[in-house]
Amino acid sequence: MTPRPITFLSDYGLADEFVGVVHGVIARLCPDARIIDISHGIPRHDALAGGLALERALPFTPAGVHLAVVDPEVGARRRAVALRTAEEDRLLVGPDNGLLLPAAGRFGGVVEAVEISQSPWRLEPVSATFHGRDVFAPVAARLAAGEALADAGDPIDPDGLVALSVPAAEITADGAVLAHVLGRDTFGNVLLDVVHEDLARTALRLGRAVRIGDRSATFVRTFADVPEGDLLVYEDASRRLAIAVSGGDAAAALGLGPGDEIRLEP
Amino acid sequence: MTPRPITFLSDYGLADEFVGVVHGVIARLCPDARIIDISHGIPRHDALAGGLALERALPFTPAGVHLAVVDPEVGARRRAVALRTAEEDRLLVGPDNGLLLPAAGRFGGVVEAVEISQSPWRLEPVSATFHGRDVFAPVAARLAAGEALADAGDPIDPDGLVALSVPAAEITADGAVLAHVLGRDTFGNVLLDVVHEDLARTALRLGRAVRIGDRSATFVRTFADVPEGDLLVYEDASRRLAIAVSGGDAAAALGLGPGDEIRLEP
Amino acid sequence: MTPRPITFLSDYGLADEFVGVVHGVIARLCPDARIIDISHGIPRHDALAGGLALERALPFTPAGVHLAVVDPEVGARRRAVALRTAEEDRLLVGPDNGLLLPAAGRFGGVVEAVEISQSPWRLEPVSATFHGRDVFAPVAARLAAGEALADAGDPIDPDGLVALSVPAAEITADGAVLAHVLGRDTFGNVLLDVVHEDLARTALRLGRAVRIGDRSATFVRTFADVPEGDLLVYEDASRRLAIAVSGGDAAAALGLGPGDEIRLEP
Repeated sequence: MTPRPITFLSDYGLADEFVGVVHGVIARLCPDARIIDISHGIPRHDALAGGLALERALPFTPAGVHLAVVDPEVGARRRAVALRTAEEDRLLVGPDNGLLLPAAGRFGGVVEAVEISQSPWRLEPVSATFHGRDVFAPVAARLAAGEALADAGDPIDPDGLVALSVPAAEITADGAVLAHVLGRDTFGNVLLDVVHEDLARTALRLGRAVRIGDRSATFVRTFADVPEGDLLVYEDASRRLAIAVSGGDAAAALGLGPGDEIRLEP
Repeated sequence: MTPRPITFLSDYGLADEFVGVVHGVIARLCPDARIIDISHGIPRHDALAGGLALERALPFTPAGVHLAVVDPEVGARRRAVALRTAEEDRLLVGPDNGLLLPAAGRFGGVVEAVEISQSPWRLEPVSATFHGRDVFAPVAARLAAGEALADAGDPIDPDGLVALSVPAAEITADGAVLAHVLGRDTFGNVLLDVVHEDLARTALRLGRAVRIGDRSATFVRTFADVPEGDLLVYEDASRRLAIAVSGGDAAAALGLGPGDEIRLEP
Repeated sequence: MTPRPITFLSDYGLADEFVGVVHGVIARLCPDARIIDISHGIPRHDALAGGLALERALPFTPAGVHLAVVDPEVGARRRAVALRTAEEDRLLVGPDNGLLLPAAGRFGGVVEAVEISQSPWRLEPVSATFHGRDVFAPVAARLAAGEALADAGDPIDPDGLVALSVPAAEITADGAVLAHVLGRDTFGNVLLDVVHEDLARTALRLGRAVRIGDRSATFVRTFADVPEGDLLVYEDASRRLAIAVSGGDAAAALGLGPGDEIRLEP
């Protein structure tokens, strides 16, 4: 049987051998599994940023086993879990800190959950600080090889999983938007908590000016629609509202970081 | 049929999920295609640096589908293209901004070109800012799977493709070289626009001193041929002239960046 | 025959095309070999850091061909080698500067060694600065394809291989530890030259306070066992002693770098 593909996201960075070791553990247990690295550059310990990146990525990856590790509480009280989604039979593996749930929501939510901290598949001795290697990787590998989720550990109630607190923009009666910064990408583009479905309820219109605090921008489709150096608002590829400077770095220009609140109005 | 291998170069960086998403789109459409990441650390929007890196790399990769995305005009007027080379039947996929042409030149140039902005293989809805995901990846995947280039979009004239302006060193009558900085690698080695074939026409000789502006260097084969900290000129692995500091960072030491002009003489 | 898997570690970084080119060379010679990137973020020219990362990683990867390139003397006098380990028949390929030996030691040491600088498998013309591409990659690929180690070059005496100088902590009569900093990981955790087997001889005890110079820490199992911002000592996933700041950067907080000596005592 062809193994299911595995995707892998973490905050491990690429400077150390951590990502390679996880690949190695998987390759020992399931030599033919394809591994797709989604990103290992999630800001350290930022489960919200990791959860949102996973949510944006998974609809574009094959259904399979989805390993994600952003895990500030490794070795402490938090549970380790493996989850099955209602749609597409995707299996998500990672810490029970909310990281996996936004992505699971894209596939109808979680219908089966297993606690894997004491999984019979774990590598002994389990270290206190590298569960990616000792718990999550072997579970992901065996699930990819076709073993049953129920055999990975002990069943738990999906309703008891820890959820992230995801900010949500407020839209005022006159169509202004009180948005929060979710993060920035490598180009300095600032991601906001305004989804496509919210847009029609705002007073923002494509092709028109937008005030961002005391700055002026234009709401356009893409970066090159305004002169280089100009501020723009656009719907990004995940269909969230974002702020950019054409050819520049909006996060730096506006001094914005995760959690900051900003007001957008025509 | 075994799919053709795919190589992938971009300026997406590895901090975000962009590279992983492109891998995911390809894996959905052509699950058995091997993907070789050439680099995703091309300086942002620097099509010249990306084009030269692609040119250096492709002769060492298997012939296949070669996806490259350095695309400051994404979503705006520039065309998206897929190209076939005269030799080795390589297929190059990316924006029509010159990025693909230096590498194509290594394989006899372009003999067939297709405009793919409206490709029947694109993912709908096509975003305005992530054509790597929505246009280039699905085209690359289907070409790797063996579908015909002609089916990817509308034929265009290869002679009408946008070319990069690549600097070329000037060699004076007395054998001095007026060179331009093409870029720097991660070690701070400075790449120049002097190719192997130019060298015999210069007055520079292996083993001899070279003046770089008002600094002294030695023209040697490799870094360890001079004491640590010394300046050297050498023919790099792509057979271009380059400047290094043994065990150090020449770009920082000399304050050189892309486009700078320097004079080399015995 | 299924090729053996190849692991690959280097200090090439990911900004340039170097890693991709090595993958390309391997894929041309052995298209079905799986390549596992262990890390390409080893500090430049730091063979000790690379050797220790390789030692930590290889026990978790499948046995196969293990390519490693941290090579300040490339193109100069140092030899290029391919080695066979006593256990698991692992084949290590890289420069003869000690990089490969800590990992080989995990598998019973080296039982066969071959000098490959003039390997019949090398790519001509061999550049002076990129032996990863021209010497090491083709040798690794052909070994993965099943060709014989003896055919890779000329036999040499394993006892003549260059060894690294690996620091070793000193434990005083009263159980204090004079340790050296081996390096830091991406999170700023400081790795020491104190292995698990040394611990019982020290006066340090899990759950108790530890003095690090004039600072106070606690010896615990994992980061979350102390309040955020507190200093901790722990046994890391490679079973070496390490120093961390919970949620912070210990290397920065203590101003520690490779080679620094510190005193740990109850």
